[in-house]
Amino acid sequence: GRKVLIVYAHQEPKSLNGSLKRVAVEELSKQGCSVTVSDLYAMRFEPRATRNDIVGCLHNSEEFNYGVEAWEAYKRGCLSNDLTEEQKKVQEADLLIFQFPLYWFSMPAIMKGWMDRVLVQGFAHEFPNCYDSGLLKNKLALFSFTTGGSKEMYAKGGMSGDIRYLLWPIQHGIMHFCGVKVLAPHICFAPEYVSEEKRKEMLIAWAQRLKTLWKEEPINCSPEWYFK
Amino acid sequence: GRKVLIVYAHQEPKSLNGSLKRVAVEELSKQGCSVTVSDLYAMRFEPRATRNDIVGCLHNSEEFNYGVEAWEAYKRGCLSNDLTEEQKKVQEADLLIFQFPLYWFSMPAIMKGWMDRVLVQGFAHEFPNCYDSGLLKNKLALFSFTTGGSKEMYAKGGMSGDIRYLLWPIQHGIMHFCGVKVLAPHICFAPEYVSEEKRKEMLIAWAQRLKTLWKEEPINCSPEWYFK
Repeated sequence: GRKVLIVYAHQEPKSLNGSLKRVAVEELSKQGCSVTVSDLYAMRFEPRATRNDIVGCLHNSEEFNYGVEAWEAYKRGCLSNDLTEEQKKVQEADLLIFQFPLYWFSMPAIMKGWMDRVLVQGFAHEFPNCYDSGLLKNKLALFSFTTGGSKEMYAKGGMSGDIRYLLWPIQHGIMHFCGVKVLAPHICFAPEYVSEEKRKEMLIAWAQRLKTLWKEEPINCSPEWYFK
Repeated sequence: GRKVLIVYAHQEPKSLNGSLKRVAVEELSKQGCSVTVSDLYAMRFEPRATRNDIVGCLHNSEEFNYGVEAWEAYKRGCLSNDLTEEQKKVQEADLLIFQFPLYWFSMPAIMKGWMDRVLVQGFAHEFPNCYDSGLLKNKLALFSFTTGGSKEMYAKGGMSGDIRYLLWPIQHGIMHFCGVKVLAPHICFAPEYVSEEKRKEMLIAWAQRLKTLWKEEPINCSPEWYFK
């Protein structure tokens, strides 16, 4: 059975994001996958990258450099518990699903904090092991999110530009950098402005996609995919 | 005298980011500007968008929708104190400078949380008042940041792609959406890998740029600037 980690960032279980998360847990479990959920708001996950992430002494207490300290602490096994827990989940997973509402053309801060703090050097990448040789290669990631704006606003030539433009930093800059292969994003446009029936169709479409997910090919993670 | 708000996100005052912030305070004060700094880590600024941001009763306590609740709370004057403080600073400012180290092709989570929580509907935008007619029009913003990767890595055709690709969500998706005009970014590439002398030159170059900042024209905030 494959292992899936769903990193989920919504405050309200009754939201469409909450339902999308539940649908994924149900469908993937039905397939025999073992599914773990990191429910970031429920966990009160800490988004701030601070000295508290390092247990015990610092490598250089004269001048605090978060990247260096987290890297050194990872090597010594001195990262805070909440981080090592998340790293264990990532390590075991074949697929990472990120489920969130789009906030300001990106993920909510609580999820950005998960990226900032969990994907430390030594664990997720370590030069020259980045991009295609990143340390999390052989894993897949999928960004599943809802938007406020409509599909038309996020079209090429629309006010907000092609939705792919904003996927560059998160899919290429984060996941591809760590060697993770990226499946096509799953986007529910403007669920707040459609009927209850349409929202149900969105849930069905997601369950449907998950049925054949493991047969999907990753996207071609190059500038052409994003900006063609 | 003009008013400047510097939103600053670095844990270490002795860092290059700390020095860039200090240089900006000094140079702009010398010009007669009144400068305010939001030192996010020192303030232990809360990045998570939660129910705690609304004082008192919710608009809809059956199903929590952060965007709607923050909007309603703004109209009723019921946002939490830390948010109204930041909104006052933004309201008074002619120029917003964001000073930070690039984390994962974007700003650190603590600063993303500032965007998520401070720029609420009703205050920063309110449909159809977005983009050129956003509610913060007549203000300027400037993103000043340091990178881990070199200038070559962030060139077109480089491993990390043109640095402008990653500016789209933050300059266009956030600032332009609120009507704020954007000055060219100020980027210090890979300061950790250059000599102390080179880092001093970076500080001098920033002070130099600030001397004539008010004569600068905003960038042309269109896809062409980013993806040409």
